[in-house]
Amino acid sequence: MKYDFKTVVNRRHTDSVKWNVQDNELPMSIADMDFKTAPEIILAMQEKLKLGAFGYEEAGEDYFNAVSSWYQLEHGVNADPTWMIFVTGVVPAISSIVRRISHIGDNVLVQEPVYNIFYNSIENNGRHVLSSDLSYHDGKYEIDWQDLENKLADPLTTLMLFCNPHNPTGIVWSRSEVERIAALCQKYHVVLLSDEIHGDIVRNNVKYTPAFSVTQELKNNVISLVSPSKTFNVAALHAATVIIPDENLRMIVSRGLNSDELVEPNLMAIPATIAAYTEGFNWLHDLLDTINENFIYAEHEINKNLKNVKIVSGPATYLMWLDVSEISKDSKKLADYLRKETGLIVSAGSIYRGNASQFLRLNLASPISMVEDGIERLITGIKNFSKK
Amino acid sequence: MKYDFKTVVNRRHTDSVKWNVQDNELPMSIADMDFKTAPEIILAMQEKLKLGAFGYEEAGEDYFNAVSSWYQLEHGVNADPTWMIFVTGVVPAISSIVRRISHIGDNVLVQEPVYNIFYNSIENNGRHVLSSDLSYHDGKYEIDWQDLENKLADPLTTLMLFCNPHNPTGIVWSRSEVERIAALCQKYHVVLLSDEIHGDIVRNNVKYTPAFSVTQELKNNVISLVSPSKTFNVAALHAATVIIPDENLRMIVSRGLNSDELVEPNLMAIPATIAAYTEGFNWLHDLLDTINENFIYAEHEINKNLKNVKIVSGPATYLMWLDVSEISKDSKKLADYLRKETGLIVSAGSIYRGNASQFLRLNLASPISMVEDGIERLITGIKNFSKK
Repeated sequence: MKYDFKTVVNRRHTDSVKWNVQDNELPMSIADMDFKTAPEIILAMQEKLKLGAFGYEEAGEDYFNAVSSWYQLEHGVNADPTWMIFVTGVVPAISSIVRRISHIGDNVLVQEPVYNIFYNSIENNGRHVLSSDLSYHDGKYEIDWQDLENKLADPLTTLMLFCNPHNPTGIVWSRSEVERIAALCQKYHVVLLSDEIHGDIVRNNVKYTPAFSVTQELKNNVISLVSPSKTFNVAALHAATVIIPDENLRMIVSRGLNSDELVEPNLMAIPATIAAYTEGFNWLHDLLDTINENFIYAEHEINKNLKNVKIVSGPATYLMWLDVSEISKDSKKLADYLRKETGLIVSAGSIYRGNASQFLRLNLASPISMVEDGIERLITGIKNFSKK
Repeated sequence: MKYDFKTVVNRRHTDSVKWNVQDNELPMSIADMDFKTAPEIILAMQEKLKLGAFGYEEAGEDYFNAVSSWYQLEHGVNADPTWMIFVTGVVPAISSIVRRISHIGDNVLVQEPVYNIFYNSIENNGRHVLSSDLSYHDGKYEIDWQDLENKLADPLTTLMLFCNPHNPTGIVWSRSEVERIAALCQKYHVVLLSDEIHGDIVRNNVKYTPAFSVTQELKNNVISLVSPSKTFNVAALHAATVIIPDENLRMIVSRGLNSDELVEPNLMAIPATIAAYTEGFNWLHDLLDTINENFIYAEHEINKNLKNVKIVSGPATYLMWLDVSEISKDSKKLADYLRKETGLIVSAGSIYRGNASQFLRLNLASPISMVEDGIERLITGIKNFSKK
């Protein structure tokens, strides 16, 4: 392994949201990583500082070409630079697109359980969440296609917010699933908005299917949102890209993003993204190996020590999804107990809605020493909770 | 002078919006500067890069205390840290507050001619611009108080967007003017939203009056927007602060800024702002001396060579406001001619509306060698235009 994924970055007492915790606490909750980003990215930012004057900027050809080449080389799909709009983040883009594409009172379709911030983007803007819940049997989530079609067919449903790959379950949707969803959306005049922020973080050589890579006849109705944010641990870079093959739909979304003041890059957004997408391949592949090792370690320890906990994670994201239904029907109580008794902070499932109140989400994107500490606290905590 | 304001920073062929021009062209238009920012700020950003992990951040006490101390020490006014909200920029905040405080179809009052982007924030959100034009006599702008009161009294007027100090005229409103406006706004249930981005850039020891520093009985109805953006040439830092003394109004605005996803700082926003506001005093004072020298030079040359051009700039901003009415009733034509014939790019007044179609705006925040080049092009160009 060429890069360093062992050194613990100390973010206690910084402006980090994740690390704004007591000194004895260990956060494995908020989805950023405890690794340093790729040195190539830091070098590009150091270079930018040498310029010294930091006036207004705009993303140009070199930025969009870098995004395009990443999708070609890393994912084997064509991403035309002319399809792209720079945006300051995936979540800001979601909120803006919800406002621009749907109307107040409309339904926005999601698949619960799903990334909790989706609900903010929908409900804070006066739209309704309509869920076609993922069905859950024998430790496996699946789409209920008939239910999905019925809900897309509702004329009040105008937008589907798709989590691709899926957070928190780690599911990587197959090409045929993505295209089947895109076809249903097209059939019922629902725009398909696909959050692909976890698209690069897929283990075991599985590849995700970007929505913009669906067949030509489905392309006119899809929006993909991508970012180096999760991939390279640069959430605070505030750089993302909206990819919309259809020109008219792109112009509509662009107008909304402009009115919402979300298209101007900060001083680091362009050089760091270009470095990530043109020089970050090897770092990412080392990262994926590291995360995979962390998963193997955590799976082994949990399976050995916590017979009543079921791991249901798919190959995507660095987030482990744990079915704790045999321990507690309200995982919030378990999470609160873990924090209080062991200092381990995990995400209680209920915020993701659907069947998630019997689940915990565990962030494994940390150096192994930290993961070992966290898993030890988890095992001790759950054992003691069960004994109560 | 301790700091370097002579070296020309070459931003040609970078992502700079201002410098996205032909190689023979000289832009003195878009309001950022051609000086390197304070070395203290660059140092703070270099330090931040050493952390290496750039996950989600939030502004904390140290940030708000730094803003507070700047207003105390540089401006002699009390700015309570609890009045403040971090935001990614002044313009994003304006747009968000327009949406949150006023309703579709309402009037937002401005004083034309004024910063052109105000119109975007108002009109792109379906509100109407209602101007109480500044009256202009003998090379001097003044408020028409009766007209202003009549327009604030219109029940459809719910927000006043105040440019304080005023761009493009450079006017610094006196304390009594600011408080008279605040009182009128309060009387007619109009929220006063004050853009104070140029507040630090005031020459000749004049001081501006922040809206949040009005008398106690007027404080419940004002919003100030401040930023190191113009002051330290860090427009692409994406850092600004909303200052609202009234708790209820602050919570209302905060809700809007959150829904619009404008309150998360990027990786440089906090450390660079803290450095600016705690270590930037001497650099700013050297900058103001430099800009003052540029104004003296430009005034001298223009007065000597262009008898039919009148300089009407007040002491604020680094932007010179030139009355060219004796040369052309449509300064856009003159500006186009200057660009085509001399390569000098200036802002034609018409975008600022009001009486501004007979004005040009000239950005003087550049090393003297660049200002000399620009003024020479201006003089040659206007002389040739007049001869046509």
